[in-house]
Parts: sequence; C-alpha cells; structure tokens
Amino acid sequence: MEFTVSQIAAMLGGEVKGNGAEKINMLAKIQDAKKGQISFLSNPKYEQYIYTTQASAVIIKKDFSPRKEISSTLILVDDPYSSFTALLEEYHKLITFQKSGIEEPSFIGSNCSVGADIYRGAFSYIGNNVKIGKNVKVYPHVFVGDDVVIGDNTILHPNVKLYAGTRIGNHCVIHSGTVIGSDGFGFAPQEDGTYKTIPQLGNVIIEDHVAIGANTVIDCATLFGDSTIIRQGVKLDNLIQVAHNVEIGKNTVIAAQSGISGSTKLGDNCLLAGQVGIAGHLVIANNTSLGAQSGVSKSITREGQKLIGYPVIDVKEYFRSYAVFKQLPDLNMRLRELENKVRELDAKPVPLVGK
Amino acid sequence: MEFTVSQIAAMLGGEVKGNGAEKINMLAKIQDAKKGQISFLSNPKYEQYIYTTQASAVIIKKDFSPRKEISSTLILVDDPYSSFTALLEEYHKLITFQKSGIEEPSFIGSNCSVGADIYRGAFSYIGNNVKIGKNVKVYPHVFVGDDVVIGDNTILHPNVKLYAGTRIGNHCVIHSGTVIGSDGFGFAPQEDGTYKTIPQLGNVIIEDHVAIGANTVIDCATLFGDSTIIRQGVKLDNLIQVAHNVEIGKNTVIAAQSGISGSTKLGDNCLLAGQVGIAGHLVIANNTSLGAQSGVSKSITREGQKLIGYPVIDVKEYFRSYAVFKQLPDLNMRLRELENKVRELDAKPVPLVGK
Amino acid sequence: MEFTVSQIAAMLGGEVKGNGAEKINMLAKIQDAKKGQISFLSNPKYEQYIYTTQASAVIIKKDFSPRKEISSTLILVDDPYSSFTALLEEYHKLITFQKSGIEEPSFIGSNCSVGADIYRGAFSYIGNNVKIGKNVKVYPHVFVGDDVVIGDNTILHPNVKLYAGTRIGNHCVIHSGTVIGSDGFGFAPQEDGTYKTIPQLGNVIIEDHVAIGANTVIDCATLFGDSTIIRQGVKLDNLIQVAHNVEIGKNTVIAAQSGISGSTKLGDNCLLAGQVGIAGHLVIANNTSLGAQSGVSKSITREGQKLIGYPVIDVKEYFRSYAVFKQLPDLNMRLRELENKVRELDAKPVPLVGK
Repeated sequence: MEFTVSQIAAMLGGEVKGNGAEKINMLAKIQDAKKGQISFLSNPKYEQYIYTTQASAVIIKKDFSPRKEISSTLILVDDPYSSFTALLEEYHKLITFQKSGIEEPSFIGSNCSVGADIYRGAFSYIGNNVKIGKNVKVYPHVFVGDDVVIGDNTILHPNVKLYAGTRIGNHCVIHSGTVIGSDGFGFAPQEDGTYKTIPQLGNVIIEDHVAIGANTVIDCATLFGDSTIIRQGVKLDNLIQVAHNVEIGKNTVIAAQSGISGSTKLGDNCLLAGQVGIAGHLVIANNTSLGAQSGVSKSITREGQKLIGYPVIDVKEYFRSYAVFKQLPDLNMRLRELENKVRELDAKPVPLVGK
Repeated sequence: MEFTVSQIAAMLGGEVKGNGAEKINMLAKIQDAKKGQISFLSNPKYEQYIYTTQASAVIIKKDFSPRKEISSTLILVDDPYSSFTALLEEYHKLITFQKSGIEEPSFIGSNCSVGADIYRGAFSYIGNNVKIGKNVKVYPHVFVGDDVVIGDNTILHPNVKLYAGTRIGNHCVIHSGTVIGSDGFGFAPQEDGTYKTIPQLGNVIIEDHVAIGANTVIDCATLFGDSTIIRQGVKLDNLIQVAHNVEIGKNTVIAAQSGISGSTKLGDNCLLAGQVGIAGHLVIANNTSLGAQSGVSKSITREGQKLIGYPVIDVKEYFRSYAVFKQLPDLNMRLRELENKVRELDAKPVPLVGK
Repeated sequence: MEFTVSQIAAMLGGEVKGNGAEKINMLAKIQDAKKGQISFLSNPKYEQYIYTTQASAVIIKKDFSPRKEISSTLILVDDPYSSFTALLEEYHKLITFQKSGIEEPSFIGSNCSVGADIYRGAFSYIGNNVKIGKNVKVYPHVFVGDDVVIGDNTILHPNVKLYAGTRIGNHCVIHSGTVIGSDGFGFAPQEDGTYKTIPQLGNVIIEDHVAIGANTVIDCATLFGDSTIIRQGVKLDNLIQVAHNVEIGKNTVIAAQSGISGSTKLGDNCLLAGQVGIAGHLVIANNTSLGAQSGVSKSITREGQKLIGYPVIDVKEYFRSYAVFKQLPDLNMRLRELENKVRELDAKPVPLVGK
C-alpha cells in the first residue's frame, strides 16, 4: 500500500505544504519516523523532533509557526492527533482486509455460497451448506463446519474453529485458536460412578460487531434449537471460557481468562476484569462491574454494582475488610489480652457498698 | 440422514398412529417443530402445542387421549421423555460419527495402520508408525505425531494436537485445539540466573471413555517410560492445565480453567469446579470435591471432603468465616470500643473493702 | 537414530567393557530396558537389576565390582547419573531437531529467506517477506504471518501462530496452539454504550532462549513501532495471557494459567506460580516471587519479596492471617461474650469510696 501526501491530505481534509507527490507507505512516531513514513505533532513538548525527523510528511496544527526550517512535507489540519488516529484506523482496516482471493490448497464442501471479496487462505476448510457474506477474510487453517452462516465484513484469523451450525454476524473479528461451538460439558452421573454423556445438540449465535480474542472457547447449547448467544457489541479477550447456554448481553466486555458457567445470563454493558469466575444458572444485572479474580455464586439483581471477592461483595467493603484481614493475628492477640484483662477485673473484690 | 416414522417407532418399541411412511430428518421442541421433524409431548402443560405443531411426528404417552384433532403422526410409547432422549443420543452418535472416508489433501506418514470406517479430514496430519483403531474420526487440521496409538471409536475434533508417543484409548472424544503431550515445564536454575531445560521424554496415556474439552493442555511426563495418565471415564472441560506426570483417577470430573501442577495424583470420582488450582507433588483422596477457584497446597488424605478457599478448608467453615470477613471493619471497631471501655473500667477507683 | 555403544562411550568419555558394536536406539530405566536400549546404574539400591536387565548397554561407575555375571555391555564412567542425563539431553536435542526437509503440501509466500536445515511440515504456512534462520523447525499447521523474522535453532511446534511482524530470537521453543501477536484488547467506550476498536499496530519481540508452553497467548503492542517484549531466557508455561505492551524481564519464569494485563513491566528473575493475575500499567521489581492464585493490583518496588493473596501481601503474613480467618466465627463469638461480660462489669455498683 502506498499513497501520496496529497491523497492523505484529501482524506483528512487538510492542506499540503511542500511536495504533495511524496510517497507514504507507513505511519510512525515523530522521533522514530523514516523516509516514506508519515507522523504527527500535537503535544508541544515534542516540537523539537519536527526539525530533525526523517518523516516524509508530518500532520500538524494549522496555526503552527515553525521556529526553524522543516524538511518534511506538512499536512495542516485542525486537530493533528484526531487526524493521525483516523489515519491509523484507516490503515488498520486496510491491512486487516487487504488479503483477498483464494490460496491453494484450500477446501470447500458442496452447496456453499460465498460473497464478493472473500479471502480463503491456504489450508482453510469450509464444510457443506455454508453461507458466507461479502468481504469475509478466512485466514489459513480456519475450520468452518457444515451449515455455518457468517455475515459480511467478518474476519476469522488463522486457526479459528467454528463447529457445525454456528452463526456469526457482520463486522466480527475472531482471533487465532478460538473455538466456537464445542460440546457443552454435560455428563449425567450413573449409579456405578461413571458418567453418561448428555448429547449437546444446540449451537452458538454471535451477533454483529463482536470481537473475540485468541484461544477463547464458546460451547454450544445443549438442546436442539437452543443457542449460546453473544449479543451485539460484546468484546471478549483471550482464553475465556463461555459454557453451554450462556447469554452475554450487548456491549458487555470481559477480560482475559474469565469463565462463565452453563446457562448463566449476563446483562448488557457489564465489565468483567481478568480471571473472574461466574457459577452456572445465574442472572447478572446490567452494568455490573466485577473486579479481577472475583467469583460469583449467586445472581446479581441490582444494576450498576461494583463487586469483588469470593463470593463477591461491594468492592469498597472488600478492601476495608481485607485491610483488617492483614491485621488478624494482631486483632486476635488484642482480643486475648482483653479477655485476660477482663478476667482480672472480674476477679477484683466486689465492693460491699450498696448491699 | 433420513428415517421413516415407522423406522423410528421400531427403534423405540413404540406403536405408530398415522402415516408411518412420513420422512423425518430432525428433532425439535414441540413449539418449534416443522415438517420433517419429530418432537415429543411429556409435560401436560405443553399439551396445547400438539394440536398446532407442524411436526411430522410426535412421540406421546400410550394412554394420551386427545381433546382435539391432531395432524401429526403419533408414536405411542410408555415414557415419551425417555424415548426422545434415547432418540437424541442416537442422533448425536449418528451426526458425530457420520463423516467417513479420506478428504484430500491429507497427510499420512509411513508404517501406519488404520482401522475400518476411519475419517481423515482435509489437512489432517498423521506421522510415522501410527496405529489407529476402527471407526476413528480424525477431523481437519488434526496433528497426530509419530508412534501415536489410538483405540476404536475415538473422535479427534478439528485441530487436536497429539505429540509423538501419545496413547489414546477407545470411545474418547477430544475437542478442538486441545494439546496432548507438550513438554512438561521443567527448568533447572543455574548459578548465573538462567535456566537449563530439563528434557521431557515421557508421554501421555489416556484410557477409555475419556472426554476432553477444547483448548485444554496435557503435558508429557519427564522421564523415559513415565507417563502422565488420565484414567478411564475422566471428563475434562475446556482450557484446563494438566502438568507433567500428573495422574487423574477414574471418573474424576474437572470443570473449565482448573490447573493441576506437576506430579500430583488425583483420586477417583473427584469433582473439581472451575478455576481450581492444585500445587505439585500432592495426593488428593478419592471423592474429594473442590469448590470454584479453590487452591490446594497440601495433600488431602481423608476421602469425601467438600473443600474451598485458599488454601482449602471445609466448605461450610469457609462460608462461616467469610460471613465474618465481611464484618471485619465492624469487628475491629467493636474491639477498639471494648478496649476503651475496659481501660475506663480499669481506671475506676479500687474499692477499699477487703483491704 | 541408531548408535553403537562405542560411539556413545566416546561421546561420554567412557570406557567400553563388552561388545562396542552393539546397536543402541533408545534410553530406558534399568528395570524396564530391553534389547537395543541403554540404561544406567547409579543408586546402589537398584544394583539387583544389573544382573537381570535386558539392556544392550549400561552406564556404570568406573570402580563398580559386580557380584554376579552381567550380560549387558558396560560403559565405565566417573558419574553414571550425569552421563545418562547428558545422553538424555543429547537424545532430546536429536529427536527435537531430527525432522528436516519440506513436506508437501506446504505454503510459502514471496520474498522469503530460509536458512539451512529447515523443516517445513505439511500444511505449514509462511507468508511474504519472512526471514527464517538456520536449523529452524516449522511443524505442521504452523502459521507464520507476513514480515516475521525468526532466528536460528528455533522450534515451532504444530499449530503455533505468529501474526504478521512478530520477531523471534535464536534457540526458542514454542509449543502447540500458542498465539503470538494477536490484537491487544483495546476498546474505547462511546456515549451510546458501544465500544470502538482501538487499532493495534505494534508487534511482539521474543528474544533468545525463550521457551513458551502450549495454548499461551501474547498480544501485540498498540502503537506503531511499539512492542510487547519477552526478554531472553524467559520461560512461560501453558495457557498464559500476556497482554499488549507487556515487558517480561530476562529469566523470569511464569507457571500455567497466569495472566499479565496491558503495559505491565515485570522485572528480571521473577517467579510466578500458577493462576497469578497482575493488573495493568504496573512495574514489578526484580526477583519478585508470587504465590499461586495471587493478584497484584499495585506496583511492587522492593526487590526479592515473596508475596501472595489478593491483593498480595507478604506470604508469611498471609498464612498467619489466614490461620485466624479460619477461626473468625469463634473470634466473633469470643468478642460478643466479652462485650456481655464488660457490660455486666460496667453495671456493677460503683463503690462510694473516694467520693
């Protein structure tokens, strides 16, 4: 990918000062930038670098008045930081979606429909009766089981595994090694101490604008026609466990290594820190915030609480209690001393007065 | 897969009422069922649906007397719920084992033996000197290292990785992304602060009827001839860590994200909830039950205990203590008040009586 | 691989007693060894086995005087245990590096450079502009993204995934399913409750002699030119989360299922037990030791501490406090009794004396 400074300026609605034909192929910080790269100056404390940078172009505030000569071509804008961020986002989209076409060998079963601008990487596998939308990127080693449906503009990074029947929405990003639709963990204890497998026949539905990190697992629902559901806008980090029949409400964000047990229903706009655990068959209210490593064993019905601990309590209470926890040996000693003192007092001769 | 109502009735030992030639290709709940699907009515509160369902067939109690006309063909049985469950299990087995034959490209090394009815998915890799039993399903992207042995009727879901020398029994199911036989985590500290790798030369043995979830890791044993062992009937969930030289006793069930450190020996019929951690070189008695997020740092010798916390204590004791933990600031204040009060009492003039 | 006893003796600087032409293809414990295998005798309590072992050769102390006839060929050395360990290490290196050449189908993009003695397993994928050093082993199903650089003597086990731009040093070992370079977890909350993705444009740098277990995830840095950095000699176990912009100091060792949040900087020679969590934007001093399941929410500035709990405190303090935690209900009761007693004492008639 290569653009001229003029093309970029046009995109940003900025004005070129210098050579607009200069070629740009990369973005960089002003202190690191080299020829062919574009940077920005926003914070005045970095001003020194604009006089020495090797950047071919620098995005700069309209009213900036240089104190020395500048060799880079300038793009004058209202807000250089926002402009650079917009450029980053554009660039990120470009590199993320740049792959297209079909690399061989790759595998596609029968009766599939695939939209325009698909990328199917080498060694990717698509089963039978699969429907894939427009501009979907299926990286190498991805597995898409039979009867899967995938919306438009969704990216499956290398080695994503979608079991048969999974449904993924539009504008989703799923990272490497994530498994969607594996069997729920259901085993019925038998009298002889063994366990009988409960067939897992549901699927997983992932709505639009969902992002999922690497090596996360989302199990399918148990019953036919039932689904484990990840609502729109949910963001899941790496190495998360989502058990069968869970539902995660829209715009809920879950940090790495957290786990949600079977049939639990998380509300909308919840925030789970890392390594949180939630037991099964619970309902968690909207806007619940759970601190790192906390454990939830009962439903949370009041919205908007900030909780932590195992089982979770109010986060301020937890830290107040933990402060005393650290002094428990001292507390215990003070109690013992007091007991001795009171025993002593009690043993004092009782005054006769009043008798 | 398609069956007639008569074929299904024969399987269930039930009686057909209606058109036995009706074709069935799917199971569904009575309120959702469509043409070509079979459902059941067990709970009387769903009776209304039998008069409106689109299901081609409904499994129903022998003595059911309809109050209106029913358009579906009926299969009359003693216990509709059990019959439907049996059908679900049969269906699950059918879809799980339905794949067969060899998809290309796939890779198989030299000197391998493979039983009847194998499925080898595209991009699956089988090394040299591998022995695979009958009716084994090797899904796409599975890696089977050199000298691996796999029993009959075992399913390796997409992207299972078996390092060289692993042994898997009969009737096992292993889900996507699970790694078996990776190096144990063994490093000897050197005087200069670096670590030297301790070669990991053992293997992993998985006995019959073991189920393992997705993205779980089981490391190989350290020494030659030694094995990390998963006994028959064990059920492991997703994202579990099983370190080198661990042994997990038969019918033990472990929930997601738990971890067992090196050389620890778990008993039979234990139950570990999610996110449990067990330190290395311990022995855990049979029938031990460990609560979510608990941590075990010492061996557990008495069988049948229910434990939780870090380090684990009796589950009832933990919750009793935790109830007080939540009041610790209050407790601390009460203690301080008492200290003041006692100091006050102590300062009271001593009665002269008795002197 | 097959060696003669004489070749092995030469390698160990030992003396052959018996048939030096005997062929050896495996190592084994003396009580299990068979023909074609080599073993050792170090601990006198195993002496009995040397008279009955089927081993083709046994490594033994120079001054050992047998009490019966020995059929195995002997290799006489100063320290049989060290010699056997050296042999194990050599053997481990041999089997680890034995694969070479290119299996088909495999994929390699344009403009790549690859050193001598490479192994590229079937279904491995190497993108464009990739630089790979000498004696690198790329197992089946490995994905190497565009612009990746890999040093000499590094092993990528089956299904390792390296996103575009990742840099790996020399003598590294990375196990199956580990993902390096996936997007950092960065989302900016919007006014309507949704989140906007913050583009993740940095990379991951892994220095020399780093070992990484299976199914671990290391995210890329957020900004262009920034890197998540794993310093030389670091050892990471399985299922670990390393977030964006983290730096792990040299020779730090982290056990399974631990997680390090974004932008945290771990010192050198730290030791993290399993399931530890560290919050983001912290600095952890060198030689810090963190107990299993501990949680760190503030920077640790003093070096060499042993900490545990959530939030972490000194490990001895934690266990002292936990001992009292277990007695909290009792403590609470004693406090209540004392309150009653003091109330009683307080109600005693005040002596008139002194008034």
